Amino acid sequence: MVELIERKRDGGTLDADEIAWIISEYTADRIPDYQMAPLLMAIFFRGMKPAELAPWTEAMLHSGDVLDLSDISAPKIDKHSTGGVGDKVSIPLAPMVAACGVAIPMMSGRGLGHTGGTLDKLESIPGFRTALDPAEFSAILERTGLVLAGQSESLVPADRRLYALRDATGTVPSIPLIASSIMSKKLAEGLDGLVLDVKVGRGAFMKDEAAARKLAATMVSIGKSHGTPTAALLTDMNQPLGREVGNAHEIRESLAVLRGEGPADLTEIVYRLGIAMLRLADLADATTAARAMLEETVSSGRALEAFASVVDAQGGDPGVVEDESRLPMPSHTWELTADRTGYVSRCDPLDIGVAVVRLGGGREKKEDRIDPAVGVTVLAKTGDLVSDGQPLALVGYNDAERLAAARPLLERAWTISDEAPADRPLVIGELH
Amino acid sequence: MVELIERKRDGGTLDADEIAWIISEYTADRIPDYQMAPLLMAIFFRGMKPAELAPWTEAMLHSGDVLDLSDISAPKIDKHSTGGVGDKVSIPLAPMVAACGVAIPMMSGRGLGHTGGTLDKLESIPGFRTALDPAEFSAILERTGLVLAGQSESLVPADRRLYALRDATGTVPSIPLIASSIMSKKLAEGLDGLVLDVKVGRGAFMKDEAAARKLAATMVSIGKSHGTPTAALLTDMNQPLGREVGNAHEIRESLAVLRGEGPADLTEIVYRLGIAMLRLADLADATTAARAMLEETVSSGRALEAFASVVDAQGGDPGVVEDESRLPMPSHTWELTADRTGYVSRCDPLDIGVAVVRLGGGREKKEDRIDPAVGVTVLAKTGDLVSDGQPLALVGYNDAERLAAARPLLERAWTISDEAPADRPLVIGELH
Repeated sequence: MVELIERKRDGGTLDADEIAWIISEYTADRIPDYQMAPLLMAIFFRGMKPAELAPWTEAMLHSGDVLDLSDISAPKIDKHSTGGVGDKVSIPLAPMVAACGVAIPMMSGRGLGHTGGTLDKLESIPGFRTALDPAEFSAILERTGLVLAGQSESLVPADRRLYALRDATGTVPSIPLIASSIMSKKLAEGLDGLVLDVKVGRGAFMKDEAAARKLAATMVSIGKSHGTPTAALLTDMNQPLGREVGNAHEIRESLAVLRGEGPADLTEIVYRLGIAMLRLADLADATTAARAMLEETVSSGRALEAFASVVDAQGGDPGVVEDESRLPMPSHTWELTADRTGYVSRCDPLDIGVAVVRLGGGREKKEDRIDPAVGVTVLAKTGDLVSDGQPLALVGYNDAERLAAARPLLERAWTISDEAPADRPLVIGELH
Repeated sequence: MVELIERKRDGGTLDADEIAWIISEYTADRIPDYQMAPLLMAIFFRGMKPAELAPWTEAMLHSGDVLDLSDISAPKIDKHSTGGVGDKVSIPLAPMVAACGVAIPMMSGRGLGHTGGTLDKLESIPGFRTALDPAEFSAILERTGLVLAGQSESLVPADRRLYALRDATGTVPSIPLIASSIMSKKLAEGLDGLVLDVKVGRGAFMKDEAAARKLAATMVSIGKSHGTPTAALLTDMNQPLGREVGNAHEIRESLAVLRGEGPADLTEIVYRLGIAMLRLADLADATTAARAMLEETVSSGRALEAFASVVDAQGGDPGVVEDESRLPMPSHTWELTADRTGYVSRCDPLDIGVAVVRLGGGREKKEDRIDPAVGVTVLAKTGDLVSDGQPLALVGYNDAERLAAARPLLERAWTISDEAPADRPLVIGELH
């Protein structure tokens, strides 16, 4: 191991056998954390070559079980987002694409830092269970065409250990380590195709476009090496996506998208990702055809039906689809107002995301319980013209102390200027 | 700790309080190896600024006891070498300088890799003890003016732990870590001055001059920050120093230097370092005066006497000074001969050093016992003209299998060419 650390440190290359040995010995507790951590730090500085990254990801992927969904004849496609504020895309997207005939074995995560997690959002639906055993997972997927669950403990155990170590050793923000962590978990789902939504901007993990583009390209190349067609969209995260931030808030907005009533930016991202999924599934060979298929699932109500079915199958109350009051509601609302007239030139997703965590909508410590009812409804977004005193956001809260902690962030999250800001494209790039 | 690792990783600066905290918490087992190791790797890549290096060294130095030699009125000066092949300099140097009135509280090390260790060499003198408790150490220093011992366990415990971790994590070759490790141990001796011999070349830890110069400058600056005047010589290590390599072999050659009969290169290095020590001790204000003082200790026999006294004080047989046959002798000798006529253009210290380890003169594993009798006498050095069949070296061995393992290295260690090689300076540079 020392020789391998030294080689990586000095810019050399580890071969596939050496990488397989490192991951399997580490998973088996025969390489100690104190040797793995400096190797990870050397990788932070030196990066990984494609010839290293593919075997590294494969070794992680094979550190545990790999899903066998070969009984399901439909093409199996998943989508993964690197995380942003107000990013509830998976929730309307999965039923729409499933309604087109794609099987969606979606494994999602919990909220991390200032970004929410799909599992936490889904669990705001009364009764909804995201911890499914493999048999349940397959059965629900077969029956409803989609399943929205947490990562199984038996999949990619190496990643769980490595991630905990990276978190404790300052080795999280390394593109090859991020890419192999994400891709090993996704490829363990036994997919026929994968679409990635790589978020860029203030509210994303990747603040700058060059780094995001590199991460996206790295993940696409890992997918290809594995034989799983992979596409990536680079999308803007310089303001919250849609208008709702917070768990039950985001379920309500997801339902709006499924009814064809969602905000334009969120709807557009859902369609763009859906089109990429249908094309990977070979169910549409042109963008316009794919978009029409997705629109039909909304106008016919089949997408909403698919969502109700999966909620029902996973123990949730399917009645929320018709009656949103069955979702948790905050006991109080506070209105944030504009202190001048002008154009919104900044609507900061990081401040808003952290504010929602402080309201109780996310975890400050791992063991914190989430309050699903709290959240922020963004009323004025970048480019909007507002008048002095006009509401910028409605803040739903249950605890005045928590509101007091969140307020300073919300009060600084908006900037109002005399001039309208330049338009930013929503989709910055697309990689195949 | 994660925040401190991240800051170092990103090229930031750790302040003195943070560094003191890291070293004390690590020594107290409250920072785990798996966090210290990636910090060390980040230091490997980012280096340390002088403002970090001084408090890092101070924190190491104060992780355990610091010698209090204030009862001894003579100036206390030590010399440290970064290690080379045939480097027995300390053994004749210490008695010569002590005979001039300098107190020499010398703490040395064991053989490391292909380089021998002063302690191992001294222990080839029958009865010589290098493990002294602090009271003995002071008493011998006071009585004889010098003491030649191992590092006390109570001094700089942080360095012992850190060194073991660095060895297991590929973080040894970092100039600030090497410099702070050496300097913390030396400064814990409570010195009035320190002279460093930084070896450069094939047989040294530092292969290139720029790195060696940087290491020397770093150590000199640490010494100054601590208030201990420090000087450094950069000296050539592209062939063995002197003619003898091996433990008892090197004691015999040291005695030759003390009698004024040593080989020119070894003798010159001893004088140059001795001059630097006398000047730091303020016992001579000119190089020529210092050299004359040292020469007098040899011609008068006082240096040899000082050596006999310290050998006696440390339990060794002082009779070796008069009768070298009391030192261990190998049972067999093999002669390596030149296979052509020409000039020796290469006499490789690394090959010769490793060959002596294979003969049993060093340790391949930590727990190996050393055979003090074996060694190599180098008969032809770089620039010497040799004839086909002329002996290049005499190899003293006790075990034919070990000789067989050493022979291929010895047979390739010399290169004989038609043209004489360019002269190399012995002392490459001097830093104050």
